[in-house]
Amino acid sequence: MGPPLREKRMSYIRKHIDAMAGYTPGEQPKPGEQFVKLNTNENPYPPSPRVMEALRTVDPSRLRRYPDPMADKVRDIVARMAGVRREQVLCGNGCDELLTLAVRAFCGEGEGLVYPVPTYSLYPVLAALQGARAIELPTNDDFSLPVADLCRAKARLAILCNPNAPTGTWTPPEVLGQIAGRFPGAVVIDEAYVDFAGGHAMELAKARPNVLVFRTLSKSYSLAGLRFGYAVGPADLIEGLAKVKDSYNVDAVSIELAAAALDDQAWMLANREKIRAERARLAERLAGLGFRVYPSEANFLLAAVPGGDGRAWYEGLKARGILIRYWNSPRLQDKLRITVGTPEENDAFLAAAEEVNGGSTFKVQGSK
Amino acid sequence: MGPPLREKRMSYIRKHIDAMAGYTPGEQPKPGEQFVKLNTNENPYPPSPRVMEALRTVDPSRLRRYPDPMADKVRDIVARMAGVRREQVLCGNGCDELLTLAVRAFCGEGEGLVYPVPTYSLYPVLAALQGARAIELPTNDDFSLPVADLCRAKARLAILCNPNAPTGTWTPPEVLGQIAGRFPGAVVIDEAYVDFAGGHAMELAKARPNVLVFRTLSKSYSLAGLRFGYAVGPADLIEGLAKVKDSYNVDAVSIELAAAALDDQAWMLANREKIRAERARLAERLAGLGFRVYPSEANFLLAAVPGGDGRAWYEGLKARGILIRYWNSPRLQDKLRITVGTPEENDAFLAAAEEVNGGSTFKVQGSK
Repeated sequence: MGPPLREKRMSYIRKHIDAMAGYTPGEQPKPGEQFVKLNTNENPYPPSPRVMEALRTVDPSRLRRYPDPMADKVRDIVARMAGVRREQVLCGNGCDELLTLAVRAFCGEGEGLVYPVPTYSLYPVLAALQGARAIELPTNDDFSLPVADLCRAKARLAILCNPNAPTGTWTPPEVLGQIAGRFPGAVVIDEAYVDFAGGHAMELAKARPNVLVFRTLSKSYSLAGLRFGYAVGPADLIEGLAKVKDSYNVDAVSIELAAAALDDQAWMLANREKIRAERARLAERLAGLGFRVYPSEANFLLAAVPGGDGRAWYEGLKARGILIRYWNSPRLQDKLRITVGTPEENDAFLAAAEEVNGGSTFKVQGSK
Repeated sequence: MGPPLREKRMSYIRKHIDAMAGYTPGEQPKPGEQFVKLNTNENPYPPSPRVMEALRTVDPSRLRRYPDPMADKVRDIVARMAGVRREQVLCGNGCDELLTLAVRAFCGEGEGLVYPVPTYSLYPVLAALQGARAIELPTNDDFSLPVADLCRAKARLAILCNPNAPTGTWTPPEVLGQIAGRFPGAVVIDEAYVDFAGGHAMELAKARPNVLVFRTLSKSYSLAGLRFGYAVGPADLIEGLAKVKDSYNVDAVSIELAAAALDDQAWMLANREKIRAERARLAERLAGLGFRVYPSEANFLLAAVPGGDGRAWYEGLKARGILIRYWNSPRLQDKLRITVGTPEENDAFLAAAEEVNGGSTFKVQGSK
């Protein structure tokens, strides 16, 4: 007689959530670990001194009382910058919250959510959590968008990250406009990295009934720790997202700090210029080391490694104190995504890359 | 010939969300408006000086980098306080976020979410957003729980607010344990107000496979503006909720401030005692004015107004600079929910109430 059948553990969690893996954020060093950290696209420069000043002067009564549910102080700044009405702006607890709200507001269980791949690896997780049907359309060989496929996708929502992560690829707003004009559902343009690019699609969010632009303060404003993003689009779509959000989704401190950051455009733009200059230098140096570097309009570079073994490179760099992002997936396993750091951080990375490149792993066999 | 038929506006938002009203948070005075604000159960005392000290000393690099996705610094404090492992604790962007996560993790579209009524008016909104089936079980005349009905409810999730809002009613943990033992789904005990009560249900979260306890720093720790809550329960349920949350749901500043607040139990407990003493005094004075005051273990009192017209009282008090919460629903329209303030705030409220009580609206007809 065999062992007794074990009763299957009853799960209180919904089956499809119980079965899935959650999103895996980029590796964060443990306290005490020293790394040159070029793996999660953080800005290497600190936030504006005005942000720190706002932090030091928060009134204790702001903490005691509930925050403004709609964060109108920030909405009004964004509305002025974007040339829209307050009702066309929504603030979120990071751009990630806005993405969650969009999936919940636009896609029911079994309905389609379409996006090109590779892209931000959160999108499939959001589809799975909602029980929505993820429609993944492969980008072309150069990572440009599969425009015709996107236009005819049977989906309620399309998410287009531009510049795209992790590729850095830029799609001109005219092309996004063509897609939005033909796609039957809502279109979210995730502009998390747009301040590092030469253009943006805000005009589409103002002109098209189905387009929302999402932005974040995490990258260009050096505020990944704060969790602040905003959406701009037609007032009825913004109202729909607002219904889904928690009543007080952004906190009182964040509202003050986000307002201070947005008010100091000069600080953001100066850091942006430094990062763009370093991006160009890094791309050239990597090409010289034998990497194939993809054109990037973001604050990172996607590059195919010499020898083609991305994991070995990731590990070789990590052993030398450099953290870089690597994905073990068919089109990315021969590549690394390298956040652009300060000149010193980039030099440290390049020095380590030269070492790894010179190591036996990647030497042409028999060249010893 | 009549007017042309208007084409129905196409909605990108899911139909049931487009059709619903969102949650209505309690009224917040506009900038410049001066009110004695006893309408949203905020703590009348400021947060611990340690919180303000933590705020003033946040390192700028904390803002630049992503926060700890799981906020382990706070989890470890909670785990120590509750006598559980870190894996049994989840931090949230306010208790509201934890409630959203629970509905998304436990209830699919069309599945049951049960709660007694009246209770926190967010629960039906969360059910509606998810497309879940809200099962509302009326409490008994004294607002005690309909225990037998709860036990046999066909639902995936029960939410029990204890002490309950807006009634202040206390359900002994033994009764909650009986329900949890017989109810087939997950049970969330929303303990937002528990620090003002004489007991708590943490032992159930430690002993029962289907019980989660949710807490918030908004009330007893005077941090409504910060948005910080935590859940304690079985590790597998916590893991399920964690999968649903956004990657970085609590920000770097909040983590530091929440840790500082939890580390100063003496401050919270001293304020709690002041509020409990005022709660007793306020209840006695209101009874003397002809209110019927319900027993409350929270930082507010539910009271039926003399004359029975809750709205007129709400408006009469507002005209006198006192903001109180009123609901126009069958069992609440003759009542007000009054947050316990400082002795001075409570005196201002009582003085205004005496005026309203002496006004012609509520005099016995013909007594002029």
